[in-house]
Amino acid sequence: MRTQVVIIGGGPSGLLLSQLLMRQGIDTVVLERRERDYVLSRIRAGVLEAGTVQLLTEAGVGERLAKEGHPHDGFFLTNDDEMIRVSFEGTGRKSTVYGQTEVTRDLYDAQDALGARILHRVDDVAPHDVDSDKPYVTFTRDGQSHRVDCDFIAGCDGFHGVSRSAIPSEKRQAFEKVYPFGWLGILSETPPVSEELIYANHTRGFALCSMRNPALSRYYIQAPSSDDAANWSDQAFWDELRRRLPGDVADALITGPSIEKSIAPLRSFVSEPMQWGRLFLCGDAAHIVPPTGAKGLNLAVSDVYYLSRALIEHYVEGGDERLNRYSQDALSRVWKAVRFSWHMTTLLHRFPETDEFDRRMQQVELQTLAESELARRLVAENYTGLPF
Amino acid sequence: MRTQVVIIGGGPSGLLLSQLLMRQGIDTVVLERRERDYVLSRIRAGVLEAGTVQLLTEAGVGERLAKEGHPHDGFFLTNDDEMIRVSFEGTGRKSTVYGQTEVTRDLYDAQDALGARILHRVDDVAPHDVDSDKPYVTFTRDGQSHRVDCDFIAGCDGFHGVSRSAIPSEKRQAFEKVYPFGWLGILSETPPVSEELIYANHTRGFALCSMRNPALSRYYIQAPSSDDAANWSDQAFWDELRRRLPGDVADALITGPSIEKSIAPLRSFVSEPMQWGRLFLCGDAAHIVPPTGAKGLNLAVSDVYYLSRALIEHYVEGGDERLNRYSQDALSRVWKAVRFSWHMTTLLHRFPETDEFDRRMQQVELQTLAESELARRLVAENYTGLPF
Repeated sequence: MRTQVVIIGGGPSGLLLSQLLMRQGIDTVVLERRERDYVLSRIRAGVLEAGTVQLLTEAGVGERLAKEGHPHDGFFLTNDDEMIRVSFEGTGRKSTVYGQTEVTRDLYDAQDALGARILHRVDDVAPHDVDSDKPYVTFTRDGQSHRVDCDFIAGCDGFHGVSRSAIPSEKRQAFEKVYPFGWLGILSETPPVSEELIYANHTRGFALCSMRNPALSRYYIQAPSSDDAANWSDQAFWDELRRRLPGDVADALITGPSIEKSIAPLRSFVSEPMQWGRLFLCGDAAHIVPPTGAKGLNLAVSDVYYLSRALIEHYVEGGDERLNRYSQDALSRVWKAVRFSWHMTTLLHRFPETDEFDRRMQQVELQTLAESELARRLVAENYTGLPF
Repeated sequence: MRTQVVIIGGGPSGLLLSQLLMRQGIDTVVLERRERDYVLSRIRAGVLEAGTVQLLTEAGVGERLAKEGHPHDGFFLTNDDEMIRVSFEGTGRKSTVYGQTEVTRDLYDAQDALGARILHRVDDVAPHDVDSDKPYVTFTRDGQSHRVDCDFIAGCDGFHGVSRSAIPSEKRQAFEKVYPFGWLGILSETPPVSEELIYANHTRGFALCSMRNPALSRYYIQAPSSDDAANWSDQAFWDELRRRLPGDVADALITGPSIEKSIAPLRSFVSEPMQWGRLFLCGDAAHIVPPTGAKGLNLAVSDVYYLSRALIEHYVEGGDERLNRYSQDALSRVWKAVRFSWHMTTLLHRFPETDEFDRRMQQVELQTLAESELARRLVAENYTGLPF
């Protein structure tokens, strides 16, 4: 088999890249380990930056998003019982609540319409000769071995994927921070307590109220990473959530049975560089952020922005300037989002080592956000997404 | 002896308070443990916020300050070899370089002119009955015991003073952070390498270039707090300082013999409350900040602002509203400056536990400051001083 760009990973970043390239006449093959239904069932992020919405629209998958997505003009922070609204007004941007599952579904539909080659249930994927002019990828499928020759390989296969390790380990540098807690989250078919997200800093720990749509809510509470979701009854979850919210929010909370309940660990991770020869990493394959700040999917999209532009320059306009600086361009934006996510996480969670001084530093920063429009504006600019 | 306000401590905050009160006809006695010459020889901070300059001027000690002080419109941060200028322009404020020694000298002169009662070489100072209507202070001087009856006691006697401990320990809460390094500083009769201060973040550690006047420079480098200034020859100091500065700054550095060399520890400390009955704490008696951010003297002045206004309200205008909320008003501003100083310290120093991820977080924040006028503006607002 031969194609121009092999894309390893059929999650939202791989699909979006394929979609943007195919619309410019560039040939792709997408290799995905799982079934389509499995990919579509993964519940992930749901807050899209303005630039993400724009790129999805440019890719031809903006129609349902425009209809069903929920544009937000701000969000709330809490400082124990105090509510602090961070308005996006001054930024000229909005964020849009639209589940990652929906984004993925729209991309599959659009890819199908273009006749994309998306191979599911592939195993043993291995990139080869990525530092040569003739890279190729091998894999097995239904017991058969296959090989795709190509010009470029895009590694969109997530943190546990194989792509990153195709960069020699002595040429890679990893930066990592593992947080000593996780997020216990539930999905519940109840109306959300707040249309806008509430990121709660409470002495008992962090909590987050978010929504998917007017009848589907997603709530989280900080829990020890050693904890198990099975230890938490729905009632125990709702009780603890209520304790961490300002009184009037807690009073307004409508509870119901959870339809999903799990604990996710929190991690910051960056691997440099994001390019090696003709291999380019996108999204979680190169970096992970804790979900505080809603950056994970948006960062993957920002990588796809830089890589799609670079490949279009190569194939359509001619020239490799953008390809050569892909790693630099992508990482510059990645690091800012990594810092924002780390900072929001540090500001809002209780750490085991948090003493009274550290706790005050959190409270004073939140107080400053309550009082200073300038400080809120800086947060809003990062939250709605720095320009590509 | 009897007075209206006993002020314990004859450093700049005690003298400024006495000066502001006496100008409104309020009677004071200042008790100082040391000789005047000793107080005047202490080399301390030298960067005054706009509000500090304004209050000194209001106290009648602004004349020499206006003539000999050096108004600054910004300062520099460095990110290894990169220089980042933080302009004060948008804040409408300036900072003024004028040594604490000079402030103290001007205050002594002004107090002398008003016939102030400043008692030096007093020992065994003890506040009594501070939670009653009739507080008094006892002390010894030249072997004789004395007592001053008063309406109020102001504790301006620094971190090691006796005033704070007159608040019952079970009624006080202390917040503290001790940093695992100090500042090795030298004073040198050389022209400063930069008119504006340079706060340097270098992989080898923090450095600061500051000045007193066009012929007197003050430089610092981060050093282990266990280190001894005697371990550092002038040459070793200059060599290490040069390594931590951008190349062109290092090249321009003019060195000479040090006329003072010492290591100062870095500490954040706040004791709450700042009032107990008729005792009011000001400055280092209640709080300490690391010098990164130049807040120490300015915070003492801000406390004196609130306390002098409150006492003037009590004696001249009638009413105790400001006295009753002194602790709250003073602490609200104190905590913001404590946070700013802590944050500047955290941003600019190497910590023993700093790993590659933490180091990147510093570099990305500095990069953000280099790129975002909004981010620089927030720093400038804090540096030049939040409004009283």
